[in-house]
Amino acid sequence: MRKTVFRVVKGGGVTSPKGFRASGVRCGIKRARRPDFAMIASDTTAVASGVFTTNQIKAAPVRVSMGHIRGQKARAIVANSGNANACTGVEGIADAKETAALTARVLGCSASQLLVCSTGRIGRRLPMEKIRQGILKAFHALSRSGGASAARAIMTSDTARKEIAVSFLIGGRRVTIGACAKGAGMIDPNMATMLCFVTTDAVIDARTLNRCLREAVDESFNRITVDGDMSTNDTVLMLANGASGNPPLRGYHPELPRFQQALNHVLKDLARKIVSDGEGVTRVVEVAVTGAASQLDARRAAVAVAKSTLVKTAWAGGDPNWGRLMAALGYSGARVREELVDICFDGVSAVRGGQLGRCPESRLKASVSKPRFKVMINLHLGEGEHTVYTTDMTVEYVRLNMSE
Amino acid sequence: MRKTVFRVVKGGGVTSPKGFRASGVRCGIKRARRPDFAMIASDTTAVASGVFTTNQIKAAPVRVSMGHIRGQKARAIVANSGNANACTGVEGIADAKETAALTARVLGCSASQLLVCSTGRIGRRLPMEKIRQGILKAFHALSRSGGASAARAIMTSDTARKEIAVSFLIGGRRVTIGACAKGAGMIDPNMATMLCFVTTDAVIDARTLNRCLREAVDESFNRITVDGDMSTNDTVLMLANGASGNPPLRGYHPELPRFQQALNHVLKDLARKIVSDGEGVTRVVEVAVTGAASQLDARRAAVAVAKSTLVKTAWAGGDPNWGRLMAALGYSGARVREELVDICFDGVSAVRGGQLGRCPESRLKASVSKPRFKVMINLHLGEGEHTVYTTDMTVEYVRLNMSE
Repeated sequence: MRKTVFRVVKGGGVTSPKGFRASGVRCGIKRARRPDFAMIASDTTAVASGVFTTNQIKAAPVRVSMGHIRGQKARAIVANSGNANACTGVEGIADAKETAALTARVLGCSASQLLVCSTGRIGRRLPMEKIRQGILKAFHALSRSGGASAARAIMTSDTARKEIAVSFLIGGRRVTIGACAKGAGMIDPNMATMLCFVTTDAVIDARTLNRCLREAVDESFNRITVDGDMSTNDTVLMLANGASGNPPLRGYHPELPRFQQALNHVLKDLARKIVSDGEGVTRVVEVAVTGAASQLDARRAAVAVAKSTLVKTAWAGGDPNWGRLMAALGYSGARVREELVDICFDGVSAVRGGQLGRCPESRLKASVSKPRFKVMINLHLGEGEHTVYTTDMTVEYVRLNMSE
Repeated sequence: MRKTVFRVVKGGGVTSPKGFRASGVRCGIKRARRPDFAMIASDTTAVASGVFTTNQIKAAPVRVSMGHIRGQKARAIVANSGNANACTGVEGIADAKETAALTARVLGCSASQLLVCSTGRIGRRLPMEKIRQGILKAFHALSRSGGASAARAIMTSDTARKEIAVSFLIGGRRVTIGACAKGAGMIDPNMATMLCFVTTDAVIDARTLNRCLREAVDESFNRITVDGDMSTNDTVLMLANGASGNPPLRGYHPELPRFQQALNHVLKDLARKIVSDGEGVTRVVEVAVTGAASQLDARRAAVAVAKSTLVKTAWAGGDPNWGRLMAALGYSGARVREELVDICFDGVSAVRGGQLGRCPESRLKASVSKPRFKVMINLHLGEGEHTVYTTDMTVEYVRLNMSE
């Protein structure tokens, strides 16, 4: 394990890096009296990178931002909650473009330097009159301490703000990475149903930033699942404005791994927060598969267990029910030899060689009744390894999703 | 549509065809005072065919029966509920073989002519002393009217017996097909978590029977889903004893389509009963995809919608939430062009060209609040069609599966 070379900024978020301001305001999209419009702006034009949902049905803001990100430059991100602006046709695209254009005008940049995001219910037009007011209100509220407000304004069924910032030295200059995210429902690998905005004051070129962001997403948001539904709006955006003045990070710069490590930490931290705050979640479970015939097999096996409704409902009841894990491994598509499978719950052996281990049921029950536990599955067929973070599935989850 | 050429036998089941006897008894595997051991025997050696779970983790009785079915002949089926005899290693295999051998001895046939099944909790050894007594008890209870008892003895969390029989003429002789099934949890296409036993007095060769059975399974059990978990024990077995004396059905006999049609009806009826009786189910939904770019795409699209946790929980609340269906189509893997998608709930247009239709929300709500409704999805990309039967996902489902 590489030594940790960064420190976490206490109470940090997207405005912790130099040269970023943010705000979160209420423009009235949500019926509840809660903030629903966020703006994150760099004082100068930043290098930009983004990772977007692989769902073929993409929300209008996803389509617009995918176009704008090709320019590799951005000044700001604007995001609303309460309405996904998905399945809204050409009018939805026009609304997303107008949001970008109006924000660009108040910030004094071109519309193509604006990235727009929406999250909430699918299929309804954005209330543009409210959005127009929101843009002005958010612009006037922009501040160096507005990170928390922005993080709050993108929440939907999240119960808590999800923020983090870390800082570290590159060539003697202090570099900071800050981020916020929202999650809660429609959480699945590739990607989670979520928004995540990352800011940094590092000097880094677009190509390197893009490579780093993709690696970090693959290590974090692509490894979590709550309900197995992939959304139309998933977006991770990152802006790097270069305000720290570090020697440029590019290609295979010797200090790049430090940057990558810090970025991975930021995204993993937010991914864990998203899982923990999943709808109705009472247990967070790390499913670690080792000994698979290949990396792909390890992923298949881990994802099948992590997504099985029967496994997740059993966990909700504190029931080890390892037979359901075995069944999930069997249909995962990964190569499995029943008589080789070992399963441990938090170090307690549940299955040895495909059969019940020697551990008393009460100890297994105790392991899976904890709010956090780890399931280790060794297939004893090769070197493939993969870990997925998942949750139980509770009565509360169903209740929340019966009417949104 | 072909004219229906069979009639349903009132109160019929596996003992409706000539030359079959059955019984269901209590041998004490289940703690509750309920029957848990079933026997279905043909008076003479029957032609046999079987379709088994594609899960790599196969229960011991599945492995044993797969071996025995290769002989294409069988005298009887024995099945216990309350214990799946899965993940029980070589001892489990020995137990399943002993069950077959003991039953064969009392029936006076070879062990290889016995087919054995188990359903229930995974990972526990069968209580063989009880099974041994169950075999004798079930043998002595065999009767021409024992079909219903057998159907009751294979139930686990099912709330009702699932039986049917139909009869029709082949070459002037009356041929009957009878069947029983159990379902309830771990229901997924390929196959449902279920057992199904089919009997017929038709004269038919093994190869033709096998072809007919596979087609019928593909039209029925491979099109239903309750919770998306594929079990270790799924088995469909069919015995044909030839007692009706019809002209042999083989190859492409002109009356074979009539037999196929009747068999399809029997299995579809049981598949529908399994879905309706799924754990905690309050709504049964037919998801019909048309206009897909290919048959495979149609299947992918239908299965993605039918399995989406968010779609199923929305239905539990009588919430049309068509955006969740659009999202599921988008990640299904099927080719989708958002602007072409049409969705109807029971004939009421919810989505036209990828956007909200003109129908008032109240009418859509009324459609998805019914105990049965049909969702028609037209992708307008080609000729591919596929239908899947699914259910809502309720608080009660989670509650039932939190501790089994």
